[in-house]
Amino acid sequence: MAPQMAELFVALLHHPVLDRRERVIASAITSLDIHDLARSALTYGVRTAYVVHPVPEQRAFASTVIDHWITGQGRVLDARRQRALRLIEVVADLDEAIDDATLRAGARPLLVLTSARTNEGLAYDVLRQRIEGEGAPVMLLFGTGFGLAPALAQRADVVLSALRGPTDYNHLSVRAASAIILDRLRGR
Amino acid sequence: MAPQMAELFVALLHHPVLDRRERVIASAITSLDIHDLARSALTYGVRTAYVVHPVPEQRAFASTVIDHWITGQGRVLDARRQRALRLIEVVADLDEAIDDATLRAGARPLLVLTSARTNEGLAYDVLRQRIEGEGAPVMLLFGTGFGLAPALAQRADVVLSALRGPTDYNHLSVRAASAIILDRLRGR
Repeated sequence: MAPQMAELFVALLHHPVLDRRERVIASAITSLDIHDLARSALTYGVRTAYVVHPVPEQRAFASTVIDHWITGQGRVLDARRQRALRLIEVVADLDEAIDDATLRAGARPLLVLTSARTNEGLAYDVLRQRIEGEGAPVMLLFGTGFGLAPALAQRADVVLSALRGPTDYNHLSVRAASAIILDRLRGR
Repeated sequence: MAPQMAELFVALLHHPVLDRRERVIASAITSLDIHDLARSALTYGVRTAYVVHPVPEQRAFASTVIDHWITGQGRVLDARRQRALRLIEVVADLDEAIDDATLRAGARPLLVLTSARTNEGLAYDVLRQRIEGEGAPVMLLFGTGFGLAPALAQRADVVLSALRGPTDYNHLSVRAASAIILDRLRGR
């Protein structure tokens, strides 16, 4: 990576998110989300990937998944997973993620909302150019469940356009959507 | 979709694949793989997505996951999952997938291997142009575990370049890699 490239962070948020009926809930952490996010993050040069949950027991679960691979039995099984999971930080809320990223990058990150509902958001090549320039750090916000609740979505500085293929359907999993967005912003 | 666009198929293969020590194994079907593949496939205009496993009990498991959402209790919970899962066909081997795709598309599909190990494969924009033209149907082959075993990989007509970001790491999950590749070939 060129040293002047803007630092990239991601946050996987579990509260407040929407359920299928658009009610505000906290979703459960999925261990496969942590693994997939870690591997995508390391592949695309993300500095730190935050797994965000307000419930201490859920954060403890996430830490157990990560510790298994970093210091526990998983370590000897697969060094590649270990390396990826070192990028994960488990935090209680978005502010904690922002504070940590600010400390690491030396500047507050631009908060970029990703959403399947936004048709007129920022184009990917525009954000890509910003990341490749000497811009401020960037944090991509990903919602679990059926997407981030408005209260959190409104905190974003900019909104990325929804991913679209040639059909009218775009209900990708957060594992798929986060991977595609990282590839669009950082893929070779 | 323009009617002249080449038909696109995907196959998620569980045998013969490699484990972490490069031994040839059959991997277990993961229900989240089926869901993610279905949602990515529908988003990017895939005609049919094949879940391929030689073991009848594993195929029965996959069918149970799908039936739950298409005719069972999941149907009323989430019509969007139902719509995506209709694209999935569970088959015993690659030949069965090829025969079915040939029947649907009216011509044998070009077999395109995806691999994290290939640095000098076909470029994505070249395959994209082929798909957008009036070419023959295309079937993308995705291996679970640590990738397709050589015996199966050798059956491919062409090999796509490995996905890369700005780092030396590219151990993406098959859920992430398949989503990114579909986006590169069919994303808007």
